[in-house]
Amino acid sequence: MKMIPNSLGRLIPDEIDGKKLKPFQGAHAGHGGGRKAGSPIRASVDYRDKLRASLDEVIDACEIKDGMTISFHHHLRNGDYLINMVVDKLAERGLKDLVLAPSALFPVHEPIVNHIKNGLITHIEGSMNGPIGRACSLGKMRKACTLRSHGGRYRAIQDGDLHIDVAFIAAPNADSFGNANGLDGPGACGPISFALADSLYADRVVVVTDNLQPFPVHPWVIRGGNVDHVVEIDKLGDPEKIVSGTTRITKSPTRLLIAEYVARFIDDIGIMEEPGFSFQAGAGGISLAFIQFLAEIMREKGLKAPFARGGSTKYLVDLMNEGLIGYILDGQAFDQVGVASLRDNPRHIETDPFTSYNYHTKGNFAPLVKAAVLGATEVDLEFNVNVNTHSDGWLLHGIGGFTDATDAHITMITAPLVRSRLPIIVDSVTTVTTPGETVDVIFTERGIAVNPRRADLLDRLKGSSLPIMSIEELRKIAIGMTGEPEKPEFEDRVVALIEWRDGTIIDCVRQLKV
Amino acid sequence: MKMIPNSLGRLIPDEIDGKKLKPFQGAHAGHGGGRKAGSPIRASVDYRDKLRASLDEVIDACEIKDGMTISFHHHLRNGDYLINMVVDKLAERGLKDLVLAPSALFPVHEPIVNHIKNGLITHIEGSMNGPIGRACSLGKMRKACTLRSHGGRYRAIQDGDLHIDVAFIAAPNADSFGNANGLDGPGACGPISFALADSLYADRVVVVTDNLQPFPVHPWVIRGGNVDHVVEIDKLGDPEKIVSGTTRITKSPTRLLIAEYVARFIDDIGIMEEPGFSFQAGAGGISLAFIQFLAEIMREKGLKAPFARGGSTKYLVDLMNEGLIGYILDGQAFDQVGVASLRDNPRHIETDPFTSYNYHTKGNFAPLVKAAVLGATEVDLEFNVNVNTHSDGWLLHGIGGFTDATDAHITMITAPLVRSRLPIIVDSVTTVTTPGETVDVIFTERGIAVNPRRADLLDRLKGSSLPIMSIEELRKIAIGMTGEPEKPEFEDRVVALIEWRDGTIIDCVRQLKV
Repeated sequence: MKMIPNSLGRLIPDEIDGKKLKPFQGAHAGHGGGRKAGSPIRASVDYRDKLRASLDEVIDACEIKDGMTISFHHHLRNGDYLINMVVDKLAERGLKDLVLAPSALFPVHEPIVNHIKNGLITHIEGSMNGPIGRACSLGKMRKACTLRSHGGRYRAIQDGDLHIDVAFIAAPNADSFGNANGLDGPGACGPISFALADSLYADRVVVVTDNLQPFPVHPWVIRGGNVDHVVEIDKLGDPEKIVSGTTRITKSPTRLLIAEYVARFIDDIGIMEEPGFSFQAGAGGISLAFIQFLAEIMREKGLKAPFARGGSTKYLVDLMNEGLIGYILDGQAFDQVGVASLRDNPRHIETDPFTSYNYHTKGNFAPLVKAAVLGATEVDLEFNVNVNTHSDGWLLHGIGGFTDATDAHITMITAPLVRSRLPIIVDSVTTVTTPGETVDVIFTERGIAVNPRRADLLDRLKGSSLPIMSIEELRKIAIGMTGEPEKPEFEDRVVALIEWRDGTIIDCVRQLKV
Repeated sequence: MKMIPNSLGRLIPDEIDGKKLKPFQGAHAGHGGGRKAGSPIRASVDYRDKLRASLDEVIDACEIKDGMTISFHHHLRNGDYLINMVVDKLAERGLKDLVLAPSALFPVHEPIVNHIKNGLITHIEGSMNGPIGRACSLGKMRKACTLRSHGGRYRAIQDGDLHIDVAFIAAPNADSFGNANGLDGPGACGPISFALADSLYADRVVVVTDNLQPFPVHPWVIRGGNVDHVVEIDKLGDPEKIVSGTTRITKSPTRLLIAEYVARFIDDIGIMEEPGFSFQAGAGGISLAFIQFLAEIMREKGLKAPFARGGSTKYLVDLMNEGLIGYILDGQAFDQVGVASLRDNPRHIETDPFTSYNYHTKGNFAPLVKAAVLGATEVDLEFNVNVNTHSDGWLLHGIGGFTDATDAHITMITAPLVRSRLPIIVDSVTTVTTPGETVDVIFTERGIAVNPRRADLLDRLKGSSLPIMSIEELRKIAIGMTGEPEKPEFEDRVVALIEWRDGTIIDCVRQLKV
């Protein structure tokens, strides 16, 4: 395997599994080119009745063959039953060499590991969380996996880099024409827009529901005109695990302090008073606490954010209802309050990766966000950030919307300085998920480092009482606490590619020596 | 020019202007094939600021060249200023041989005739109403025009048969990112979804608004991620002519009788009691009266229609508010009440030609409609219907949604038996817009003819007191009133093609001998 360096100096394969790779050249170096994929032209006369009696009947109708690529969305998260159900049925049929292209996988999908071992699945194109990532690190996949961000997945499907033969779309609320959303029913999960690209570009599209409603189901997030088959099954998933009953703010003093620093930082640089202030946080403990601190400042100063990006939670919804946020633009709901608000409040708007994140569009929402608050597993002295592997070398997380969200005006990374006795700030990250050029500020409980590229922010911080320091100082404090950590050892074999938003390869993950 | 017969025996050119034509083979003979067009892949980094200072700046940025195809939608109807404004500017620049691809043209667009004569525009791909159609009949276009239905236009753009270089989208309500709808602002027109295909497939997409609003404008019927440029101008159109203040029910006793017959017919065949009853009428005088008669029956019998298709009017909206209709699925609003209801009532849903009408989808809404009530200029003994030309040979109307709507379970044509001293029922229609196989019942004030193909309807009518007769009898009555009409005389030259929903040619229009 010939290895070539990309613009960050990371070595990536020239080609892999017969596919030529393009090395990363810079966060915004890509300018597109070529034309989008075209899905097959079908005739409506052949779609007078799409309702199938069973999942087996659907699988027969889709004529799935060895080597095909099948896809799923992950809006049912760790409560999902569908992926295992379908994959088991495909295994029963003796199929092999399938490519699995989910928008993400969760611990509940651990049975997939066996299907990888038994030859049903060669590899995964999509994020892997937990056990599947672990199998990947151990070299269990026959081919190298590709990890993409939410926007990167949309792009890859749209551009024809990731061709999906059959998409199975879990739809908590659907009609017999195939119109579907996630707003109602026992498996209600809020948005289901991660499946939008699949519905538009896959050769065959199946809507699977446990809540078949009369026509028309609206909003038609998934449009019946793109759907081949509709099937009702008993249960899509476990509602308790699809969305949590409640999301919770961290109680850790360390994390609360980090959250407070972020809010004070935003206040100190004075962007909240500027037109178009907006933010994106998430559902992690630090993020939720940050939202509370920020809201406090907004109340005191009488300020308002025209919009905030979800994932939505009770906390974000409360702020909108209080009038502190104009709109919530939401890609996934993390609790029941988020789901209900999306269903009932016209200012709570479902967004999909095309409009939120896709780099190969005529613009997306990511650069309109003023402050994005994100997590990390490692940050290095070049401000490169890793969210995929841990310092011990295990691939345990997908990219999610991470790299897409770094297109915000200010990208802020929060992390406790030390985690599991390993420093978060390292000389060089194990894996680059996003390059330092996209990362602006690192927040830890011991200090805050601003990327020297952002002289504008350092200017605005004059007079701030926040503990601003260089990333080297932060690194020193961390190492003082942990000592120099041991580096993991890797085999030569590349087991996963980390794809940048534009389809170039920013880094690769190697098999772990164990 | 070699002429070949299609399955109706109509002679159509084998090819025209260098383009090979496919003869019509039957209403549902097409089964698709091939892949949809792919629009250019752009990168979001190049779209950080889409706002242009003027229409001239936009036109410069779009690099329009001789021979290109430019498009517009017709939701501003006879109140539209934009088409003339842009076309005048293109003429000032000395461009030539442009193809104009609007979803329709109206009398207000009469100045286009001069631009056809002076070489700016070679021909029109799209519906032509009034003066432009007249120019076409007189052979003023350098190339043959193609008339398509609303669904057929979407199909042609989607399939790549009609490639649009630059789409100008009049947007009554838009933000600087290009998100747009027609729900607010001085030019509010309700839906603007006729521009959906243009926004998805054109190489360059311009949103032109006279009502620039803060981000995010939602619903984003036109999505900013598909938009290259946004420009604010003084005035998109004349609100008085964009939507009428009020639509009015006919007062003509003849037309009222026809409307009553349609409602009684629907009642007599017993489909209103069956699940999923739904109807589509329109905003013509007969249609509005029909809706009132139908509502009366629904009230009396305690029945409800789960949905009705727009165009929407006060009359349809009143029925929904009364609870007689579950949803209005609406492609265009014909009065102010329709616009306001679409904006404010979540059960009033905007539909676009993809979902309503496109034949090359995995199903569209047209066959879900139980009863479609449509007009005609001529009907013949084979039940073929003409809506494009008059019996005197002039091309004066577009197809609109007509042929798409004939996919309804029962297609009902209403027309007074005689119009301008010409019989509506003829031996053979001047132009076939839709074949007899799609047409089920002809309603006139003197009698009702059911297509013999629909034995099921004739069965259900047993015992009905309606004046059911054969189409030959109707023809006889008409001729008795008018005498045999003179046939118009045509030159050999084909000036327009009537394209069927699947892209085949069902008929052609020849230059009038005058």
